[in-house]
Amino acid sequence: MDLQLMEHRVRVTSIDKSGLWFYSHQIVKLLFLRHRTRCKFFSLTESPEDYTLMLDEEAFTELPQSDFLHVADHTWRVLNVLSNGMHTGGVMKVAKSVIAPLAEHNVSVLMLSTYQTDFILVREDDLPLVIKTLLAELTIYKEENGELVRMSLSDVSDNLKVKSMFNVRVHPVQSPANRFCILTLDRDTLPSISTILLDVLFYSHESHEGTAAQDSESFRFFAFSLIDGYISIVMDTEIQKKFPTDLLLTSSSGELWRMVRIGGQPLGFDECGIVAQIAGTLATADISAYYISTFNFDHALVPEDVIDTVITCLLEREKNKSECIAPVLLHQWQT
Amino acid sequence: MDLQLMEHRVRVTSIDKSGLWFYSHQIVKLLFLRHRTRCKFFSLTESPEDYTLMLDEEAFTELPQSDFLHVADHTWRVLNVLSNGMHTGGVMKVAKSVIAPLAEHNVSVLMLSTYQTDFILVREDDLPLVIKTLLAELTIYKEENGELVRMSLSDVSDNLKVKSMFNVRVHPVQSPANRFCILTLDRDTLPSISTILLDVLFYSHESHEGTAAQDSESFRFFAFSLIDGYISIVMDTEIQKKFPTDLLLTSSSGELWRMVRIGGQPLGFDECGIVAQIAGTLATADISAYYISTFNFDHALVPEDVIDTVITCLLEREKNKSECIAPVLLHQWQT
Repeated sequence: MDLQLMEHRVRVTSIDKSGLWFYSHQIVKLLFLRHRTRCKFFSLTESPEDYTLMLDEEAFTELPQSDFLHVADHTWRVLNVLSNGMHTGGVMKVAKSVIAPLAEHNVSVLMLSTYQTDFILVREDDLPLVIKTLLAELTIYKEENGELVRMSLSDVSDNLKVKSMFNVRVHPVQSPANRFCILTLDRDTLPSISTILLDVLFYSHESHEGTAAQDSESFRFFAFSLIDGYISIVMDTEIQKKFPTDLLLTSSSGELWRMVRIGGQPLGFDECGIVAQIAGTLATADISAYYISTFNFDHALVPEDVIDTVITCLLEREKNKSECIAPVLLHQWQT
Repeated sequence: MDLQLMEHRVRVTSIDKSGLWFYSHQIVKLLFLRHRTRCKFFSLTESPEDYTLMLDEEAFTELPQSDFLHVADHTWRVLNVLSNGMHTGGVMKVAKSVIAPLAEHNVSVLMLSTYQTDFILVREDDLPLVIKTLLAELTIYKEENGELVRMSLSDVSDNLKVKSMFNVRVHPVQSPANRFCILTLDRDTLPSISTILLDVLFYSHESHEGTAAQDSESFRFFAFSLIDGYISIVMDTEIQKKFPTDLLLTSSSGELWRMVRIGGQPLGFDECGIVAQIAGTLATADISAYYISTFNFDHALVPEDVIDTVITCLLEREKNKSECIAPVLLHQWQT
């Protein structure tokens, strides 16, 4: 497995649920009007608490400031798992060779799985340490003048930051009842679903004559990303019913996914090893998974037929970690 | 010709060019998501100075307040020219039997022509006087329990406001070089052009690598209305090129229209007789026209082959009105 260090310099933000309207204008442009923007990295994930918006600096600088917007410190750089276009294995694949070594060096990471691939986000400050650590395990490419060239230790400065001690916490996980699908569509057909997408993203909480009441009681999770022209959507089967069946593409197996959600309270960005705990557990059990970090929580999506196994494994994790601080509280999301 | 007094209670607002983004969220909903709104009267007109947004109170109450939004006093009621679905004659048709009598009674009106019909907006306070005045000339219906019933003098209170003296001013007119088309499309096909419409309405001023420079130099006028489910769009031939040719419908003659724009400076809402001056002139010359009032100016659209005649007639108007205060400044819009 090879990695690519991408050009994107990404900012990670959270928009309050009550303030998404303030950003509709910019988000509509980033979603639908490619000729109006130079943005190449856009990811919007709705979770019950907020919207996580990750975008490159080209787009970030156009966002108006407001009390609705919370911006994580640091610029983040993106490592992309090089593949043949199809997502295979996800977290399981990167757990041992990427996530674990970074956790051992106390580097905190965010992860964003899409239909096409897996992105690992690291702080730009940590990049020398990240590259040095990972070059010991695998090959990393970067793009130069349109060509992929192999990186070497000479590509990174010697200014390696020594990271503070890895404080292992085992976070509680939750598993909502929703069944998720992971979809894509051709960018050229995006206009065909634009009004439905607008409705789902921006207005499905607004109650009109009580029609939205049902929505607001269930666990809300919807992730849309548009990265280098590739679209990926994660939505549950209830929301999927709103879209025409012939435009959204899923893998031929058409499998559905269940979620485990990591963190009883907001995780913050300074802790490391969160992805490693979950990824390691899943990799040990040989379970394929998608993984989506948001501003406050982490989310792993696993095939629905193994959700019970995953829950069992994560419960075992508690018993095996004598150093854990927080107890594992494992329960179904209340619907 | 008959009129219908419609149920809509309309507010007339102006949004600063720099502040449309603040209203994108609400406007997108009103345009595209009929199941999310009870709005039945929506009209958005871009002119060089601002956006004029006319909407019924159901939609108005959901607009956030801001310094970008300017709201005309009074609620406005709407008279609709009853027709067989096709617009015929426009201002010419209503000039003598509606516009002139109201002007004589010092009632100020706004007018909004669409692909389908002509709407005449009057202040709700003036409604008793309006109905009494017009019943002398023609038949007015209103809807009761889904049926059109004929109105009589007993439908209006005796509380007739005596209007102050009619102060005749002849306003300067301008004629931009743009050639306009007047279009409609089926509401069910609106999603097909949603991303283009969003682009034209919200983003065509935003310069990205200089591409919008050309737009900003020309005279900008774009009117979109969605009233009782009927869509009407007025755009110039340059903007029309952005839309697919097969979805927008125009009358079989496919004629193009030129504009005369009334008012060298903002007209305000207290003056009456503005529409009457122009409409009367056009009716005398037997010239069919569409008429669109915005927050600050009035706009008449006439068939392009008679624009020179119209300009001549309006120049004559100056000579014939000894009581005029402002001189007629007639010139082409500088492009």
